[in-house]
Amino acid sequence: MMKVDLPNVYRDYIGCLNSQDWENLGRFVQDDVVRNGMTLGLEGYRRMLEDNFEQIPDLHFGIEILVTEPPHIAARLWFDVTPRGEFLGLPVNGRKITFAENVFYEFREGRIQEVWSVIDKAAIEGQLR
Amino acid sequence: MMKVDLPNVYRDYIGCLNSQDWENLGRFVQDDVVRNGMTLGLEGYRRMLEDNFEQIPDLHFGIEILVTEPPHIAARLWFDVTPRGEFLGLPVNGRKITFAENVFYEFREGRIQEVWSVIDKAAIEGQLR
Repeated sequence: MMKVDLPNVYRDYIGCLNSQDWENLGRFVQDDVVRNGMTLGLEGYRRMLEDNFEQIPDLHFGIEILVTEPPHIAARLWFDVTPRGEFLGLPVNGRKITFAENVFYEFREGRIQEVWSVIDKAAIEGQLR
Repeated sequence: MMKVDLPNVYRDYIGCLNSQDWENLGRFVQDDVVRNGMTLGLEGYRRMLEDNFEQIPDLHFGIEILVTEPPHIAARLWFDVTPRGEFLGLPVNGRKITFAENVFYEFREGRIQEVWSVIDKAAIEGQLR
């Protein structure tokens, strides 16, 4: 097995997302990637991310905690954003919200094979009250 | 610094929770433990767990993914439970639900110092529809 520096690969992946560099997404994500039990594939994964940026024009992924034990990475990501309209079924409508995503990745040959993500929806609900 | 086998400590911690062995909780949790930004302390942490078991009589913590990089552990926990009444503000009322908790821990001297937890509330909402 090729030796891969997963934390650096992951930071480059997050840089790829933040710069919306979709041409290079396949360097980080396997063709048959699975997210939360659904096989999205690289194209579906890219479409999901493009939709996220469409809905959240100021979307930026910040790494708050990074825990690496190959083949897994776990990251606590932080968001400070202003989604348009509804977000996760909540009427955010351009208000500023902050929230965390706690997410696990399994890598295969240096690229993301599977993702298990949970977004802190309860925290967003608290900010909309 | 003492060398600690964090994955084993963590599995023993989960065993302590599942057996509701509150007398031994302090072996795993620091006196001034912080959870999601709030200083609960060991007593507040224990009270939170006791309340969880009161509300969810069949509560059982299952480890689905465990990622260790000292001083951090990240765990994806899985629950297959029947909460009484409201749970996370949702009218579960004794129905069976399954959900994940993606949670990060920072250890200090072999005990949990800080916890960042996110429960997949959206998945529970989907099961109640």
